[in-house]
Amino acid sequence: MAAADNNSNSNINSSSKPKIVTGSAGYVLEDVPHLTDYIPHLPTYSNPLQDNPAYSVVKQYFVNVDDTVAQKIVVHKNSPRGTHFRRAGPRQRMYFESDEVHACIVTCGGLCPGLNTVIREIVCGLHHMYGVKKVLGIDGGYRGFYARNTVPLTPKVVNDIHKRGGTILGTSRGGHNTSKIVDSIQDRGINQVYIIGGDGTQKGASVIFEEIRRRGLKVAVAGIPKTIDNDIPVIDKSFGFDTAVEEAQRAINAAHVESESIENGIGVVKLMGRYSGFIAMHATLASRDVDCCLIPELPFYLEGPGGLFEYIEKRLRENGHMVLVIAEGAGQDLLSESIQSLDKQDASGNKLLQDVGLWISQKIKDHFSKQNKMVINLKYIDPTYMIRAIPSNASDNVYCTLLAQSAVHGAMAGYTGFTVGPVNGRHSYIPFYRIIEKQNKVVITDRMWARLLSSTNQPSFLSAKDVIEDKKEEELSTQMVDEMEYSDDSLEKKVISYTG
Amino acid sequence: MAAADNNSNSNINSSSKPKIVTGSAGYVLEDVPHLTDYIPHLPTYSNPLQDNPAYSVVKQYFVNVDDTVAQKIVVHKNSPRGTHFRRAGPRQRMYFESDEVHACIVTCGGLCPGLNTVIREIVCGLHHMYGVKKVLGIDGGYRGFYARNTVPLTPKVVNDIHKRGGTILGTSRGGHNTSKIVDSIQDRGINQVYIIGGDGTQKGASVIFEEIRRRGLKVAVAGIPKTIDNDIPVIDKSFGFDTAVEEAQRAINAAHVESESIENGIGVVKLMGRYSGFIAMHATLASRDVDCCLIPELPFYLEGPGGLFEYIEKRLRENGHMVLVIAEGAGQDLLSESIQSLDKQDASGNKLLQDVGLWISQKIKDHFSKQNKMVINLKYIDPTYMIRAIPSNASDNVYCTLLAQSAVHGAMAGYTGFTVGPVNGRHSYIPFYRIIEKQNKVVITDRMWARLLSSTNQPSFLSAKDVIEDKKEEELSTQMVDEMEYSDDSLEKKVISYTG
Amino acid sequence: MAAADNNSNSNINSSSKPKIVTGSAGYVLEDVPHLTDYIPHLPTYSNPLQDNPAYSVVKQYFVNVDDTVAQKIVVHKNSPRGTHFRRAGPRQRMYFESDEVHACIVTCGGLCPGLNTVIREIVCGLHHMYGVKKVLGIDGGYRGFYARNTVPLTPKVVNDIHKRGGTILGTSRGGHNTSKIVDSIQDRGINQVYIIGGDGTQKGASVIFEEIRRRGLKVAVAGIPKTIDNDIPVIDKSFGFDTAVEEAQRAINAAHVESESIENGIGVVKLMGRYSGFIAMHATLASRDVDCCLIPELPFYLEGPGGLFEYIEKRLRENGHMVLVIAEGAGQDLLSESIQSLDKQDASGNKLLQDVGLWISQKIKDHFSKQNKMVINLKYIDPTYMIRAIPSNASDNVYCTLLAQSAVHGAMAGYTGFTVGPVNGRHSYIPFYRIIEKQNKVVITDRMWARLLSSTNQPSFLSAKDVIEDKKEEELSTQMVDEMEYSDDSLEKKVISYTG
Amino acid sequence: MAAADNNSNSNINSSSKPKIVTGSAGYVLEDVPHLTDYIPHLPTYSNPLQDNPAYSVVKQYFVNVDDTVAQKIVVHKNSPRGTHFRRAGPRQRMYFESDEVHACIVTCGGLCPGLNTVIREIVCGLHHMYGVKKVLGIDGGYRGFYARNTVPLTPKVVNDIHKRGGTILGTSRGGHNTSKIVDSIQDRGINQVYIIGGDGTQKGASVIFEEIRRRGLKVAVAGIPKTIDNDIPVIDKSFGFDTAVEEAQRAINAAHVESESIENGIGVVKLMGRYSGFIAMHATLASRDVDCCLIPELPFYLEGPGGLFEYIEKRLRENGHMVLVIAEGAGQDLLSESIQSLDKQDASGNKLLQDVGLWISQKIKDHFSKQNKMVINLKYIDPTYMIRAIPSNASDNVYCTLLAQSAVHGAMAGYTGFTVGPVNGRHSYIPFYRIIEKQNKVVITDRMWARLLSSTNQPSFLSAKDVIEDKKEEELSTQMVDEMEYSDDSLEKKVISYTG
Repeated sequence: MAAADNNSNSNINSSSKPKIVTGSAGYVLEDVPHLTDYIPHLPTYSNPLQDNPAYSVVKQYFVNVDDTVAQKIVVHKNSPRGTHFRRAGPRQRMYFESDEVHACIVTCGGLCPGLNTVIREIVCGLHHMYGVKKVLGIDGGYRGFYARNTVPLTPKVVNDIHKRGGTILGTSRGGHNTSKIVDSIQDRGINQVYIIGGDGTQKGASVIFEEIRRRGLKVAVAGIPKTIDNDIPVIDKSFGFDTAVEEAQRAINAAHVESESIENGIGVVKLMGRYSGFIAMHATLASRDVDCCLIPELPFYLEGPGGLFEYIEKRLRENGHMVLVIAEGAGQDLLSESIQSLDKQDASGNKLLQDVGLWISQKIKDHFSKQNKMVINLKYIDPTYMIRAIPSNASDNVYCTLLAQSAVHGAMAGYTGFTVGPVNGRHSYIPFYRIIEKQNKVVITDRMWARLLSSTNQPSFLSAKDVIEDKKEEELSTQMVDEMEYSDDSLEKKVISYTG
Repeated sequence: MAAADNNSNSNINSSSKPKIVTGSAGYVLEDVPHLTDYIPHLPTYSNPLQDNPAYSVVKQYFVNVDDTVAQKIVVHKNSPRGTHFRRAGPRQRMYFESDEVHACIVTCGGLCPGLNTVIREIVCGLHHMYGVKKVLGIDGGYRGFYARNTVPLTPKVVNDIHKRGGTILGTSRGGHNTSKIVDSIQDRGINQVYIIGGDGTQKGASVIFEEIRRRGLKVAVAGIPKTIDNDIPVIDKSFGFDTAVEEAQRAINAAHVESESIENGIGVVKLMGRYSGFIAMHATLASRDVDCCLIPELPFYLEGPGGLFEYIEKRLRENGHMVLVIAEGAGQDLLSESIQSLDKQDASGNKLLQDVGLWISQKIKDHFSKQNKMVINLKYIDPTYMIRAIPSNASDNVYCTLLAQSAVHGAMAGYTGFTVGPVNGRHSYIPFYRIIEKQNKVVITDRMWARLLSSTNQPSFLSAKDVIEDKKEEELSTQMVDEMEYSDDSLEKKVISYTG
Repeated sequence: MAAADNNSNSNINSSSKPKIVTGSAGYVLEDVPHLTDYIPHLPTYSNPLQDNPAYSVVKQYFVNVDDTVAQKIVVHKNSPRGTHFRRAGPRQRMYFESDEVHACIVTCGGLCPGLNTVIREIVCGLHHMYGVKKVLGIDGGYRGFYARNTVPLTPKVVNDIHKRGGTILGTSRGGHNTSKIVDSIQDRGINQVYIIGGDGTQKGASVIFEEIRRRGLKVAVAGIPKTIDNDIPVIDKSFGFDTAVEEAQRAINAAHVESESIENGIGVVKLMGRYSGFIAMHATLASRDVDCCLIPELPFYLEGPGGLFEYIEKRLRENGHMVLVIAEGAGQDLLSESIQSLDKQDASGNKLLQDVGLWISQKIKDHFSKQNKMVINLKYIDPTYMIRAIPSNASDNVYCTLLAQSAVHGAMAGYTGFTVGPVNGRHSYIPFYRIIEKQNKVVITDRMWARLLSSTNQPSFLSAKDVIEDKKEEELSTQMVDEMEYSDDSLEKKVISYTG
Repeated sequence: MAAADNNSNSNINSSSKPKIVTGSAGYVLEDVPHLTDYIPHLPTYSNPLQDNPAYSVVKQYFVNVDDTVAQKIVVHKNSPRGTHFRRAGPRQRMYFESDEVHACIVTCGGLCPGLNTVIREIVCGLHHMYGVKKVLGIDGGYRGFYARNTVPLTPKVVNDIHKRGGTILGTSRGGHNTSKIVDSIQDRGINQVYIIGGDGTQKGASVIFEEIRRRGLKVAVAGIPKTIDNDIPVIDKSFGFDTAVEEAQRAINAAHVESESIENGIGVVKLMGRYSGFIAMHATLASRDVDCCLIPELPFYLEGPGGLFEYIEKRLRENGHMVLVIAEGAGQDLLSESIQSLDKQDASGNKLLQDVGLWISQKIKDHFSKQNKMVINLKYIDPTYMIRAIPSNASDNVYCTLLAQSAVHGAMAGYTGFTVGPVNGRHSYIPFYRIIEKQNKVVITDRMWARLLSSTNQPSFLSAKDVIEDKKEEELSTQMVDEMEYSDDSLEKKVISYTG
């Protein structure tokens, strides 16, 4: 069974290269590591779910060992089948006995709605599905492995935590010291490690996995990708994103009311999104009260024809007020120019201007006061922490439950060095390298962004020249059209699938 | 182009048979009708989006004529590729000129969050993307075609309606009179009909399409499936479902607080779901405060070992209180037995008992007062209308936008007799017969229901015998295992994809 | 000090007659009992707040022994000053030492937003202000004194409870057994009893106080009046009322949306209010979407000219839809007539019809189906438990804090047999008999109800004859004009002061 | 009747001196001006409410001409009766005929929840109660009188506006030009002016009234005091305050979650309150998650023993996190010191630091990074615009209704140069000078602030010396004890009465 489950190229002493399996009609499986890749002769156990009254009546409860999930879903009649991932879910054979398991959970990075739900469901999943009693919470992020106390986690302790925002385990940035962490894991006898965090955290998890593999430990490492910005590739969307877009509506509504109630009112809302503008884009599309949305992927400019100031003037003249949504990572090039031109003497003030929301608000005010063109009334709203700190909504709660259970099923079945997440709606096990190799971004030459442009009527900030070059490039690449289509596809998936 | 777009078997005088296209490796396309199926030599026009500043910079804006969406997503290395649907989205060639279009929109059946957003986005999509100026709202459902006034719909009229619940067009049940409706369409010179409603409504739309086809009219009929219950097959989920599950949390929370605050407190919450229990199941999974969830798909019984009363007693003894969620269509067999045994004299009282929530509440009270076992305190909550009437949340707003725009793109491109909806996260055109042939249901021998059982600890209400028979049946059907897997797959998709 | 504080007529062996003090210009003080009324020579202690860093800087922290609060606030130039109550607040001399206090808290009757806040603030008030460490929670209402376990309450235990609905102590109705309760108080050595509940509960508290006084125990009994219906006399409003009116808006909005979306739509909302219609009246005034509001104080009728059915028909014809709000205690006479006329055989169905919301919905449906006049679409919403179970809002939280602290100050200062509550915005100690002698009611010949009539345009249901008789009565009573003015005044205070 | 209504000292040619009436037992009435003060022989009309079906059944609908409202409510047995105001409400005799009235409404200053409700209720009140058809909205504040268009306001136009935030009339600051405004009033034939705004606006209204009086125009000027900060004297609380305190809970909750989830987390929330800290104080008391609350009335300091930094260090060491709430006007002296010490070159940065929230956040960060004592994680939240822009809650809606109707009744009855507002829960007419002479402030030597200190445990920031001096001062003033008591009384009223 184990053999079947781990496919052809699992090789006991193999280094940690991608595990690729190919099939007919262009089928490719990018598989995840398994404990048996580097530990031979591991015993297996039957899955206790077989005797669980809730599950025993389920006809097809266990995932078929051959089940994989197709990444490519928009296809042509005769197109190759492309990349697949291993389907997540319970297996018939376990590589851990219930009594043997000593799991730990750690949360890293910024807050995101749903963290507590994921923690809750890992604990309850291990306990109720697999009878695992020993689960430790690592306090305060990676450095908690070696510097802080741990918290025993039981179903009772975590019972109501999904109704609260934040993370009961605490979190921190950085603090990753591979050998100290793996030492601590070894010392405490931990054999399942659940790591919840963003791409930096997942890179850390990957390194921890490699060190554990190097030491030959029977320890499963599972990553649960967390990013409120939805900028993780491959997976459909990240948990907390839905909740964040919903909560962002409040700030946009407030900006709309404020700007409407005063002559030449401008409401500016800064939303999360350091490298990708998904929250800003979706919040804009859902609201319909936004006149301009600026995101990191969009190169924009302030002055001159086709620039932001011109557009603001136009909207104010036509409509008397406007709402501008800006993602925190937008316009970084313009902002660093601005900062450099400032006198270096006032550190505090300058630091504040590195907040793009404060910066653009000041720029707009300066422009209109300089030009004497019109008296404007600008109101700036930064709802970031009010969004991050709320509990996850019902949709994210169910999503977090599936995510946590998928991670637990995978670890119990001996998979390791993997992350979990939905691919075209099906939860899958994805190798770390696919999650951390790049960031998911809004493609501004794609249809979803076009929808936004059409809804806001904002300028494209793309010169005619840019577009023509883009088109030429496209023609040149007809031979790789499928790949092009694929990348477009990949983007749209991100965008569409969380809504459906 | 039309030829390419309409594939092989389009035959001018063909009757309305399914349009099936097959390809390599078991590829099957279930295509939708097109105006050219029965009207030859229709002229085509270039898509005005090509000159739209918002869209002209988009590299791959138009959907490739060959794009199809795979329904089957969990696959094996060498499994057949299975059913596909035509991908939704804008085409390069139109079968309507902007000036020529006279569209109408009708909403039928019960309220559902998002109705106004769909109306808004059809109007704005036609107007902003295609320059269509003539859009009529049909007042009060199907019968509005011949019995009521119409409302001219412009972007200004619909500008803020997505922030309100209900439907600005009004709605009704029934009232379908095919020839009167098609007469009215013909009389008014309408050539695009957008029909928003549940499966009964879509059946009606299908018949309208057939009559229009019979009369040889150049009228595109597009259905937008609406069901708060999420019981429409093929598509990932229906609009408003997310919002409904979210809002249901309030009622469950209240039931939890009420039951917790009193000795032997029982909170009973009735949720929507006449034929399928998706809302009840998801609300239960998201909340974690529910001890028992009863849905139409689940045959349950009240008395005796393994029955509901026994379980309630057990929970009260263990925990002092409990929460029961029941879908409106659950236990219909038990309920009609009860009703029949009642004296027929008191019509009003009996009618009330046909409400399953009132009925089960009374049954529980009767049981515990008869048995003298314990004094219970039952609180019954029916939040149905409070859920149905709220505006759609941000996630549903974006979803409704894509749905409406897909319908508009399809109609403009000459497709007709189709519904739209996401299949594995990709919006697709689906023939009517696939939407109306059956209802999407919770499969209680599937993993999602097992998750629920595991979370509530409620009895399975399945006798050992049932399970054995089920298993036997399964063995007998090994030859059709792929189909089995498919149906399981289909279910899980429903369940998972709305979260991812 | 005690002497001064307890005024003239405190007599050690006096029976529990009202303590009335009179002054100049018609000044009357209705005082509350004090431990020294029946226990002579009690030692006093200085108030520990004097050494509390938070309070020691307060200039006029202690309430002047002579402070009283005027009940009559609308006055004439030379009108008598009328009734006053003793002002609540900390006194300089205590009749309990901190170490000596053993307090208990009990909650009785139905849920009401704010119960947990009151509990929290009694515990924290005793602890932080007076250094009291021993506080017991009585579990499950009055009967918890002798039949259930108690819960030790500390600031840590109650820290977050104000964010949850319900009562952490549990509650029940009835269960009042005076001697068992006082035995239990004596046995446990409890010397401060805080009783939170409605008028039945306060009657019970009054009896407990009398028995304690009879036994000569040094036990202070403080009542905190609780009624979501706001039907307690003398005090400005009851806690939870604001929160309830706010939450009721949801149900009314839903009824409005449902009724608007369908031809001849009628939305019926049942709100709390068994004997008084304050919630229904205020929710109606706040919403502006209600066409008819029926309350217990309003005698209305269904059939004939000026009746409800006629009005409904009129509204539907004019406006196409309507919203009806009905308090649970409205129309009890009509309802019992209806019930009596029913065949007695179907107990369950009949019981349901005793719910006035179900009853009136059925009556309206029957009327319109019988008459064949118009097809109506009625939607009935009962949000009762969803309103009762929510946590209190910010305004009620601050209110509950003052209420709890006032009770604590009073008990520490030796007052007993009293309730607390704001009189014209100033927290006061009120003798039990004033709280329980009658219920606060909406006066339908008063201005507030006229405001409602003017806003809904509903019929007054008062025949011309009624009005004339009312007026005559008024004339006859000119000699008691001040009393009239007073009662009107009293009503309006209820109504206005919670908003200001 | 007019004579009776306008009391003794109304003198046709009197200048605009306070109208003071005295009575027995120290009774003082501070009356408001009346049109008959400067226009003799005005005809009167009977009140149309007498024929209004909603009002005609009301027994004591009209306010007695002698009704006055006592400002002093905490009294002693023999204390003088003190100041009173004229009771608001409908009079039997009108000084305007319905057809004759041409009213206008203007909103000035910052947004505040409830503005639209007040507008709605003035329009509907005039229309439904008095049959007034001509109501103009002045667009964009005072300058709208002469520089902008007006908007005709009808019940239909304002029907749903109370469900939206902001003001449909638009607003602005300044723009007050007395003669231009009165010219415009005269030119347009306006004879009732309703002015909604803060104390600056009310000063403007007072000047407009004086000019109108000087010109001898029959124009009634009514002020409706608006301040989200609740800093208007005399009245119990201002509209929108309740809603603001409620909404502020969100920001405090978020700050709490953020700070709890990270080591040495500090959540800083800036709330409204330029000159008074009522919102900050009440939001702190309602939340219970705040460790320190800084308001304009509180002189605090950062460095040294008893300072803010020391307290922050202590809380972090004890508890690991803390929440700081700061009113926008707090610490202005410290802030201007800081700004002056900055280099003047970077105007933009400096301007940002004038935001006290950004300033104190920076100060705290600088302190802890300089000292190297601990790494802190500070999150700053400014919810100001998200609070101001929401619609008013149910409680404020009812309050705004009474306010608007009181203003309408007053103007129709010929009163002018007055503001309206509840005094001890009873709506009253208050002369302008009492509203604008000073601001209502939190008294930090009063009990309410002591409650806050006791709940947060923050330092008092008062040196022992300060307190002693305060006490001495108090002793010196024993001869004016009643006045002292009065001012304390006045403060507590503010604080308590909005909750009751």
